Amino acid sequence: MERIFTLKHQDRNGKARTGVLSLPHGEVDTPVFMPVGTAGTVKAMYHKTVADIGYNLILGNTYHLYLRPGTDVLSLFDGLHAFSNWGRNILTDSGGFQIFSLSKLRKIYEDGIKFQSHIDGSRHVFTPEKVVDIQQCIGSDIAMCLDICSAPGIDKKKTMKAMDLTHAWAERCINRRDSLLEETGRAFRGNLFGICQGGFYEDLRIQSAKTISQMDFPGIAIGGLSVGESKEEFKHFLAVAADACTHEKPRYVMGIGTVDYILEAVENGIDMFDCVLATREARHGTVFTDDGMLNLSRAFNEKNSGPISEGCTCTACTHYSRAYMRHMFKAGEIYGAMLASEHNLTYLYNFMLRIRQSIEEDRFESFKNEYMARFYANGGLCKN
Amino acid sequence: MERIFTLKHQDRNGKARTGVLSLPHGEVDTPVFMPVGTAGTVKAMYHKTVADIGYNLILGNTYHLYLRPGTDVLSLFDGLHAFSNWGRNILTDSGGFQIFSLSKLRKIYEDGIKFQSHIDGSRHVFTPEKVVDIQQCIGSDIAMCLDICSAPGIDKKKTMKAMDLTHAWAERCINRRDSLLEETGRAFRGNLFGICQGGFYEDLRIQSAKTISQMDFPGIAIGGLSVGESKEEFKHFLAVAADACTHEKPRYVMGIGTVDYILEAVENGIDMFDCVLATREARHGTVFTDDGMLNLSRAFNEKNSGPISEGCTCTACTHYSRAYMRHMFKAGEIYGAMLASEHNLTYLYNFMLRIRQSIEEDRFESFKNEYMARFYANGGLCKN
Repeated sequence: MERIFTLKHQDRNGKARTGVLSLPHGEVDTPVFMPVGTAGTVKAMYHKTVADIGYNLILGNTYHLYLRPGTDVLSLFDGLHAFSNWGRNILTDSGGFQIFSLSKLRKIYEDGIKFQSHIDGSRHVFTPEKVVDIQQCIGSDIAMCLDICSAPGIDKKKTMKAMDLTHAWAERCINRRDSLLEETGRAFRGNLFGICQGGFYEDLRIQSAKTISQMDFPGIAIGGLSVGESKEEFKHFLAVAADACTHEKPRYVMGIGTVDYILEAVENGIDMFDCVLATREARHGTVFTDDGMLNLSRAFNEKNSGPISEGCTCTACTHYSRAYMRHMFKAGEIYGAMLASEHNLTYLYNFMLRIRQSIEEDRFESFKNEYMARFYANGGLCKN
Repeated sequence: MERIFTLKHQDRNGKARTGVLSLPHGEVDTPVFMPVGTAGTVKAMYHKTVADIGYNLILGNTYHLYLRPGTDVLSLFDGLHAFSNWGRNILTDSGGFQIFSLSKLRKIYEDGIKFQSHIDGSRHVFTPEKVVDIQQCIGSDIAMCLDICSAPGIDKKKTMKAMDLTHAWAERCINRRDSLLEETGRAFRGNLFGICQGGFYEDLRIQSAKTISQMDFPGIAIGGLSVGESKEEFKHFLAVAADACTHEKPRYVMGIGTVDYILEAVENGIDMFDCVLATREARHGTVFTDDGMLNLSRAFNEKNSGPISEGCTCTACTHYSRAYMRHMFKAGEIYGAMLASEHNLTYLYNFMLRIRQSIEEDRFESFKNEYMARFYANGGLCKN
């Protein structure tokens, strides 16, 4: 199997590392934050703006894209890149997590998951093979296996059963990937990542990380984190899983996007993460600053002629005051969501640049400590 | 009084004409369509995109801006240009029309209009003088007098009373404009336009047009049209009012934005018009094409890999298919509203270019006839 990850530098004082992912639509510096474009658009953003910021790897969502526009439409365009006119890399999740959180009814059985669409109640089945096929149709540069996520509080027996099924499905995904050329005349276009699970049990986390690491995957995701557990549990099980995973492949933690969780992940040697938080919060008028999250609707912004964040290069910070941004949100203007989304993605892109630089200079730990001290000086909220 | 309008060319076969408006923030070719940016933003559009299309005169709304963000905030920025970072021209309406359509309660008396905010029910008064002052605070390049609009069906006595008050208020607006330097230390920054009314009575329309034309205004608006009357009535009273207005000043018809009404206005020698329709329809997925209005959500777009409109230079038409645009609206994505708004404003900008060119070449009438025949071939709807 081809290796897609090249280590650039390991911080000499810890596990944090920089590297490069070599993907079909270009190279990606890691650690990387990936914006989420669920339905083939990063919400309230021109694709051009996302690219101009510097992002070259964004997410799409298999569950959403399968339901709408559907694989028949995507096939006409030979996938999501042409359909959405995004010439850079796309990672798609397997849809398993969305089935759990969005679909009306779902039932896991040996062969896959039955569920009803959250849009129209229509009935569907996702099997490991089908999920590979859908992502082949999408043309994902990084595709994910179908997995089963075990939330905190689920007993060990059930968690183990879900883990074992996740492992069996991982093998089935690999088999489908490897037989596509023969069975369809076209080899798999992307890089299939395995997902390790194991819930909130140390031995299962280690077992799953090792099992998935040994399989024929070019990259590994750590699933089932940031699903309702405490921050202490998150930190503990992240460290357990990250340590047990192979370090030769890129490691991806799914669904994290707050600065503290990103720093925690990087500290554990994680290379990739994604989250809807940056754009969702933006649409509600909450933006990142070095001094914590800023709620633009708050009254103290009313006559503030300064930018959201000094030195930020986004359109909001170079063209508009906090007073104008507050006005946009008070007036319910879409432009507020557009500008705040651009700001948050610009902020996180630059945040990752700062993280990578600190690793290259072997000072990630001090960067993290200084950043956290300032960001959380007011409990994580920017208050003036 | 300074003249702001220079006639370039009068179509030798009719009343349609081209010209140039000389305004504080640059020249504007006429006939001109002006996008509406009610609250200091053209909805779902980057200001940069609005400027890149070519627009150099947009609307703001006195009523909305007065209520939110308020003149105290606007004063901090010395007006809307800096507050909204729009370096080109801004026209503001007087707020009279919005008081009628939006505010909870309103009462007209000799001195002005009392009303309650549609946002929080707070009580306010607009007088002719106050409306001039607010627009001075906004820094409008073109400001409008406070007027009273008479809808069809209002009896002649009431219409005449409203007209007479509109004329008296016009004089008061002029007086306030001319005393600003002495009373506030700063001369009026913009160009105050008078508004003629007269409802749906020929003699009153003519009387009002002549009265307002003789006053010391650099431009004239024809108000009280497109307020519920039939298209035949609109055409008739537009022609009556336009003919009775001075032809030496720019003439502006408020609130029209469909292609047939724009063509009708141009045919009558009108130089300026505005409407929210282009951006409002866009947010609901309806876009302009030469073959009529296209509802992007309709099923026939599902697998259409072609653009909204061949040859259009907007982001939607150069980057995305109708299938993608439909997907955006079916999925409720803001990006759909952004792209469709950009398309509609690009379309109307180019539509005005075509109109101006046809006038320069003395073939406006044939342009209008050919355009209308194609646009209305299917009742004004693009069906494939």
